[in-house]
Amino acid sequence: MWTRSLVLSAPGKVILHGEHAVVHGKVALAAALNLRTFLRMTPRQDGRVSLQLPNLGSRRSWAAAELRPLLAAASAELPEAQTPSAQQLEELKELAGGKDGHEAVQSVAAATFLYLYLSVASKCGWTKEELDVINRLAFKGEQVIHGNPSGVDNAVSTWGGALQYVSGKISVLERVPTLRILLTNTKVPRSTKVLVAGVKAKLLKFPTIMEPMLTSIDAVSRECEGILEAMTGDPSQEHYSRLEDLVDINQHLLNGIGVGHALLDRVCQVTSSHGLHSKLTGAGGGGCAITLLRPGTTPSAVEDAVRDLTCCGFECWETVIGAPGISAHALPCLRAEVQKALQGS
Amino acid sequence: MWTRSLVLSAPGKVILHGEHAVVHGKVALAAALNLRTFLRMTPRQDGRVSLQLPNLGSRRSWAAAELRPLLAAASAELPEAQTPSAQQLEELKELAGGKDGHEAVQSVAAATFLYLYLSVASKCGWTKEELDVINRLAFKGEQVIHGNPSGVDNAVSTWGGALQYVSGKISVLERVPTLRILLTNTKVPRSTKVLVAGVKAKLLKFPTIMEPMLTSIDAVSRECEGILEAMTGDPSQEHYSRLEDLVDINQHLLNGIGVGHALLDRVCQVTSSHGLHSKLTGAGGGGCAITLLRPGTTPSAVEDAVRDLTCCGFECWETVIGAPGISAHALPCLRAEVQKALQGS
Repeated sequence: MWTRSLVLSAPGKVILHGEHAVVHGKVALAAALNLRTFLRMTPRQDGRVSLQLPNLGSRRSWAAAELRPLLAAASAELPEAQTPSAQQLEELKELAGGKDGHEAVQSVAAATFLYLYLSVASKCGWTKEELDVINRLAFKGEQVIHGNPSGVDNAVSTWGGALQYVSGKISVLERVPTLRILLTNTKVPRSTKVLVAGVKAKLLKFPTIMEPMLTSIDAVSRECEGILEAMTGDPSQEHYSRLEDLVDINQHLLNGIGVGHALLDRVCQVTSSHGLHSKLTGAGGGGCAITLLRPGTTPSAVEDAVRDLTCCGFECWETVIGAPGISAHALPCLRAEVQKALQGS
Repeated sequence: MWTRSLVLSAPGKVILHGEHAVVHGKVALAAALNLRTFLRMTPRQDGRVSLQLPNLGSRRSWAAAELRPLLAAASAELPEAQTPSAQQLEELKELAGGKDGHEAVQSVAAATFLYLYLSVASKCGWTKEELDVINRLAFKGEQVIHGNPSGVDNAVSTWGGALQYVSGKISVLERVPTLRILLTNTKVPRSTKVLVAGVKAKLLKFPTIMEPMLTSIDAVSRECEGILEAMTGDPSQEHYSRLEDLVDINQHLLNGIGVGHALLDRVCQVTSSHGLHSKLTGAGGGGCAITLLRPGTTPSAVEDAVRDLTCCGFECWETVIGAPGISAHALPCLRAEVQKALQGS
């Protein structure tokens, strides 16, 4: 058992290039996004396990004795993590307070926490091998959250930086630079499933037209990977210019395969009027866009772009990609708002 | 010699699909545009050859005797039309009133007229073989106007309908439907040469990305050709839906290869808000866009779109593609404004 609290964080993820194409066997590049999720673990003396999710406005606790039967079953599997069984998922969701068929984000988060808590107990470490364990555990969390995870999200959040994903194979990129970006949420809701099905339908309708477009997207991802690797130790502006070309080209290709949206075009137009280059990230059809910022882009230039984007009703965050993976923190070193949220107990 | 006046017309041309890609050996589709150029030929008794170009505000005449030395040289070559010699071009331009290095459109038009007039003299006919002669003569006109014509423009204007062009080979499409379109001029000036060079440079910079995009454009042209041929005798709405898909996809691809323009995107957005699909036509980077209209698109729907486009500062013409080629007319059957322009002598 720990004797004092432990503060950890892990980055988010964006798809840099290759969304949708990856479904059809092409390369995708994912990068760690420095919008981080923080976790503070504190030992208790009252025999209870308590979970607080301040962002989700959720606070739950369970008697440790109540969890013990599940603990034995889950921890026996570690670290060669198996898929959680249907019965385990059922019991977890019941404990987590999920009503029949009701999968509110709070319940899913609680069930995921419980599963990982029960699996990991007091195991925690930071060697390469231990990071592998964390990655596999995070993957188990993904399996609780949705049925068929690719393994990309947990890998990016564990290792940080960027990685290549192709045909189920994940390779972590060596020497990835940290790139400034603007993440813009168009707030247009969309269904990844519907968008993926739309691309599939278009591929069946116009195979000779669509297949080369996916090949082109694949080449964009590979070219981008080469540029990212060449950037380390060579801070030439030419690299940024090529990255911008790739962002523009891929945005047009994504529009071409039918996963664009008028408001994503709007993000591109607005940022273009500030000399910046944007593309959708992820499923498209709405959702988020990323905008590359050069090292020399001034704060006031970013503010101007953010102001115009906000006027369109979008929400923006300036952050970096290629961020560190899972990290330990000293609580006093964190931003005040993060400290405050973590001290809510 | 004719004893009464002869009224002829020939259609303009649009590239339906394949602009730029055609430079790199891919298929392009060109279609006859029913914005026609009219010609009225009237016999004279005064021994002079007179040329009036009311659209260009130009009126010139030459003594037939002065033209005779050139006549012998030019007509001897017919109908196996050779390229006009540098000396012939020099003499023509002098006669046409072109000052040194000054290539005003009026002078080039006059020089082209003189060359064809001198070549054709009183030859004129309408059999298949004679149309071939007209096509070759029109090609000679193209050679006077610019150095290295593809032969597409003269072929479309002669034969009408639509044709496929690939690697220097022109094939006239059988059974092409007449399609309603809106032609919109963004009035953004651009240089075809600069745009073609830009695509070449991008192809050299990102060959693995750009080559599949050109392959995709090639497939768009071939798919469109198949649809046009399938449309004859099958007026299914599904054909129009596919043509619209192709227009959208190609517009994104053309943006991707770098020949788009913000105001061409504007045309697409405005027409899209009226449920219509548009793409740039020709060199891009400004210039014109075409918008497909379905047979059922109501005049008021077209008027609404035209009003919004006009508000953006664009100029629009509603017309058809797949129009007839060179045609003879009875003067009284033409629109009043055309009659008036042709009776200006």
